[in-house]
Amino acid sequence: MANATNRKITLAARPVGYPKESDFAMVEEPVADPGPGQVLIRTLWLSLDPYQRGRMSAAKSYATPVDIGGVITGGIVGRVEQSNNPKFKAGDFVEGWLGWQSWAISDGNDIRKVDPDLAPLQTALGILGMPGMTAYFGFLEIGLPRPGDTVVISAASGAVGQLVGQIARIMGCRAVGIAGGADKCAYIRDELGFDAAIDYKGEDVEAAIARHCPDGVDVYFDNVGGTITEAVLKNLAKFARVVICGQISQYNLDKPDLGPRNLRFLLVNQARMEGFLVFQFADRYEQGMKRIAGWIKDGRIKYREDVVDGLENAPKAFIGMMEGKNFGKLLVKVAEV
Amino acid sequence: MANATNRKITLAARPVGYPKESDFAMVEEPVADPGPGQVLIRTLWLSLDPYQRGRMSAAKSYATPVDIGGVITGGIVGRVEQSNNPKFKAGDFVEGWLGWQSWAISDGNDIRKVDPDLAPLQTALGILGMPGMTAYFGFLEIGLPRPGDTVVISAASGAVGQLVGQIARIMGCRAVGIAGGADKCAYIRDELGFDAAIDYKGEDVEAAIARHCPDGVDVYFDNVGGTITEAVLKNLAKFARVVICGQISQYNLDKPDLGPRNLRFLLVNQARMEGFLVFQFADRYEQGMKRIAGWIKDGRIKYREDVVDGLENAPKAFIGMMEGKNFGKLLVKVAEV
Repeated sequence: MANATNRKITLAARPVGYPKESDFAMVEEPVADPGPGQVLIRTLWLSLDPYQRGRMSAAKSYATPVDIGGVITGGIVGRVEQSNNPKFKAGDFVEGWLGWQSWAISDGNDIRKVDPDLAPLQTALGILGMPGMTAYFGFLEIGLPRPGDTVVISAASGAVGQLVGQIARIMGCRAVGIAGGADKCAYIRDELGFDAAIDYKGEDVEAAIARHCPDGVDVYFDNVGGTITEAVLKNLAKFARVVICGQISQYNLDKPDLGPRNLRFLLVNQARMEGFLVFQFADRYEQGMKRIAGWIKDGRIKYREDVVDGLENAPKAFIGMMEGKNFGKLLVKVAEV
Repeated sequence: MANATNRKITLAARPVGYPKESDFAMVEEPVADPGPGQVLIRTLWLSLDPYQRGRMSAAKSYATPVDIGGVITGGIVGRVEQSNNPKFKAGDFVEGWLGWQSWAISDGNDIRKVDPDLAPLQTALGILGMPGMTAYFGFLEIGLPRPGDTVVISAASGAVGQLVGQIARIMGCRAVGIAGGADKCAYIRDELGFDAAIDYKGEDVEAAIARHCPDGVDVYFDNVGGTITEAVLKNLAKFARVVICGQISQYNLDKPDLGPRNLRFLLVNQARMEGFLVFQFADRYEQGMKRIAGWIKDGRIKYREDVVDGLENAPKAFIGMMEGKNFGKLLVKVAEV
């Protein structure tokens, strides 16, 4: 793309504790021409998600970390500008893990087409994308909810949490959300229809769970870990299921956080705790997307996005998310269609 | 039973931390006559098991605690001496939760007959009783082992652990046991056929697990909790199953033990951790007993008992078990047949 410039955000240093802006660098380079079989994509939307913190660390995990100087991992929605691949043509909208950059080249194997008529394009990164699939399959397949169950969700106003609570309601469960601050709590209770909201910044979480879940917690969908999870474990119902989706409270710790060893709560309640990664359900994403799209159309599911303008603001927005400052699915608008 | 004396061990005080002998009292009383429908039983064998520590505590658990002055909970095998119940006759051998006492009265609903020709009577408290069922169903139904899996067992020479490792071998798994001391390690490796033994008193458990389980741990059968479990969690394989059977390292702590919050290991490995109580499998005990009895007969399963003589020695033996001093299934021989 003659004259166009790719702006990419790279990992300047591995964050120690919470990431800071100096851990990121903005690098500019000419946009390359796509080679044989390749596709050139202009980024429109970038998704910011907690899992990206893990990729910035060298610690052993399920995925290879980003190298120093490498583009930060991230899902994007973009527009095909040039294509040497018969499966894509200029003007197609696509989604894929192409990173924090304004242009990207793909061989076509790591992108999928997005239908712009189905829903706003950026939902392919949120409610109809990875966070949506995470909520749908994690809750239903790992949490095994049954009607009448009491379901507790941490980070309940986030990209994943807001959907879990609403699916719980659709299934006839009671949904109790934990979120930070009165605004988020009012949103999940009054706008999304959660049965109760607990403000972890303003009240004693353990006492609030006991009050809102007098028969115990049947399903706990955990996005945060730490003291909030500790409080929920003390209130499990018999045969409870704990879905370990995220542990954001632990991602930015320099030294491991200490807490009481509490596996005894699993024993006495005959409870199950299970971690999952959404990829294990990849062959069923289409089913999940159809269901969620149907619920949105019927007005049974709402969602909230938190949009930041400009790729250069991605690091600051990401750091804010680690501190719980986002309100809904966090997106960076990189360019207009 | 005219002139007979019932000796019973009661809870004198709720233990703080490790139990001490003064937390127990020996009380003598005349043996009562059985009422209508009742059975009078003379205790032959008393089972000492880690779960009994929980019953001495007032903390919320799955079962009601023993009252101060009450007889300590425990499984026994005894002989029916008088019966006013048509289902039992004098001379029958029975097993039931009749407590730490030399005589007991039952209405017949909480005891089952034991066949003295099937196996030595006391196996109804061990390999063919509650510990055997715990190993059999907990490992197979919660651990879901597959041939070729690497299985790690803590408290591997104990009543439950020794059986889990041998069933793992029968199923074509590799069995790695963790036990305290060279004698116990030699026993599980050389006598029971475990593939490897780790001496938690003599070596770095985390490093030893990594060495003996180079592809990670597929199933961890946990009887102990604490630092040993922490070390195993760092070595889980993808899609591992952790069976929470017991947490003996935590039962005698005055204040909760602190450890690193490590649910992240479940997340990145997509692993499951589940607590269970053997009672959930009660309707299938007969199946379990038949299978284990068959394996004993075929010489595929061995077991070891640690026998203490005299009811008066039960408290001291129980305290020793909390410290890992027993070697095999701990039993008190209360009377001769």
